[in-house]
Amino acid sequence: MRGAILHAPGDVRFEERPDPVIIEPTDTIIRTVAASVCGSDLWPYRGINEVPKPRPIGHEYCGIVEEVGTDVTSITPGQFVVGGFLTSDNTCPHCRAGFQSACQNGGGYDGCQSEFIRVPLADGTLVATPEAPPEDLIPSLLSLSDVMATGWFAAVSAGVKPGMTVAVVGDGAVGLCGVLAAAELGADRVIVMSRHPDRQKLALEFGATEVVAERGDDGIGRIKDLTDGVGADAVLECVGTGEAILQALRSTRPGGLVGYVGVPHGVELPVHEMFFSNVGLRGGPAPVRRFLPDLMDRVWNRRIEPGRVFDLELPLDQVADAYRAMDQRTAIKVLLRP
Amino acid sequence: MRGAILHAPGDVRFEERPDPVIIEPTDTIIRTVAASVCGSDLWPYRGINEVPKPRPIGHEYCGIVEEVGTDVTSITPGQFVVGGFLTSDNTCPHCRAGFQSACQNGGGYDGCQSEFIRVPLADGTLVATPEAPPEDLIPSLLSLSDVMATGWFAAVSAGVKPGMTVAVVGDGAVGLCGVLAAAELGADRVIVMSRHPDRQKLALEFGATEVVAERGDDGIGRIKDLTDGVGADAVLECVGTGEAILQALRSTRPGGLVGYVGVPHGVELPVHEMFFSNVGLRGGPAPVRRFLPDLMDRVWNRRIEPGRVFDLELPLDQVADAYRAMDQRTAIKVLLRP
Repeated sequence: MRGAILHAPGDVRFEERPDPVIIEPTDTIIRTVAASVCGSDLWPYRGINEVPKPRPIGHEYCGIVEEVGTDVTSITPGQFVVGGFLTSDNTCPHCRAGFQSACQNGGGYDGCQSEFIRVPLADGTLVATPEAPPEDLIPSLLSLSDVMATGWFAAVSAGVKPGMTVAVVGDGAVGLCGVLAAAELGADRVIVMSRHPDRQKLALEFGATEVVAERGDDGIGRIKDLTDGVGADAVLECVGTGEAILQALRSTRPGGLVGYVGVPHGVELPVHEMFFSNVGLRGGPAPVRRFLPDLMDRVWNRRIEPGRVFDLELPLDQVADAYRAMDQRTAIKVLLRP
Repeated sequence: MRGAILHAPGDVRFEERPDPVIIEPTDTIIRTVAASVCGSDLWPYRGINEVPKPRPIGHEYCGIVEEVGTDVTSITPGQFVVGGFLTSDNTCPHCRAGFQSACQNGGGYDGCQSEFIRVPLADGTLVATPEAPPEDLIPSLLSLSDVMATGWFAAVSAGVKPGMTVAVVGDGAVGLCGVLAAAELGADRVIVMSRHPDRQKLALEFGATEVVAERGDDGIGRIKDLTDGVGADAVLECVGTGEAILQALRSTRPGGLVGYVGVPHGVELPVHEMFFSNVGLRGGPAPVRRFLPDLMDRVWNRRIEPGRVFDLELPLDQVADAYRAMDQRTAIKVLLRP
């Protein structure tokens, strides 16, 4: 088969790789229907994370089950499935507590921007749709493997409750999904921090009630102005930079929580400020599997359409162009089809 | 009157000060019945916080109302009252949200280890007992002004719920009160980290079910051993040092929260580790006023006896000895009486 290999920063190639095979009896092989590029794939692509040697890349996917291992019981060949960006057995104590992101037996993938994917721990990782999905649901189903579940987790981590005023830092795909999540969870007001007109527009369609285009201290000042000097009840940090974290912490009211889901890069947490402002911080990698059944229902019933974050579709063999488009911000999020 | 003045690190003197007077119509003057030395008073005493010039010190007190300003409505002369270590109007948005620690109009005191105390914002700060308290309740009532409310807030911040396994880092007065709080909030198991036999004993009497004497990595390993490798559901950090914070974060299960109430000194938060372990952090200065009515009920009804953390009582004019005893750890907590 063919799949994406990151050879070095800036150098993604779609090339011949061995077909994946069942290794463990709990494995499944799926034929990729759609895959995508994650903001976190850009860290090594940009050389901010090291790339010591070429490696398969990608962890967002959906597809059709081709083959299952002898111990797989809930997933059968022919099903359309979505899995999170980490595998999980869904039975260990961390999984049972809803933190499949910390599964004692879970892990990553050997690249998912490829024609076929080996999914370990299939029963605990994958969720199947009720039947073969209509074509137009594919983008939204794909988004559940990471960005939508991650935006949802940001909102849950920030403790979003009905009636709250929520601020979202970041207008990438995760931030936009965070807006959608906050609105679905009943937030009264959702303030999105965004400077890009196209992203502002989508955020408003996803349920944002206000847009703050300013950043840094000015952005924080605007959030305070919009909340009578109090700050937002809950803030979603969907970027991962030091500036974004500070902006989130300082936009939160005393006693509020920042839900952070952007992988931290160059972040130093201001512990004194956090302490004396009573602002808490909670998040990390999303336990996608916890939210997948519920989110799949919402997509299936056309209650939410997170797939709208994909603003560019390319053939999988043009994966290098997809990285370029996201790196240069000419696309919010690229959907790839074999 | 006479009161404690911190002149320089290690130099506390009990000396003549002007009698406090009503300045704002919302002020009250109280006659001190008991006061105490806080762990946070030791930071400047030890020179870890700067002491640029002599200043009155102390913020833990209870007493009898002597005089009230013209706008004070709920507090009357003769009442026995307790106030938190920060004043609050109890009406601003932060107060209404339960974070009186961040009151928009609140602040500190002009020293409370003194014969009389001016309490600003009396209506929003003080809570009166139903009647004059019996002598033996004084220590427990005094503890509500800081340590018991702070331990309680640590438990609330860590999200302690019935049935949980809770670990407490720190066996000072706040840590011991955290043990009591976790037990009161229904924790199934309360593991206290303590090396001191007398403190271990009191912790067990306050509801601890297990003691871990090891510190650092060994202590974390013991917590993991006691929880089948999972970690505690909630951890209370009641010290404030970098070592204590790390111990707390690393003893918490994925998805769990550390409730931190020790003023951070020399703390660098390990953001990557926190992120990838899904461990959250929440706390800060306790909103004492939120918990004061409930905690006063529990003390009044003799359900809890947090006053047992006081293991030394001295006349107020020996306040310098109180600082020495706490600095040298010959006492957990000193109660002072005029």
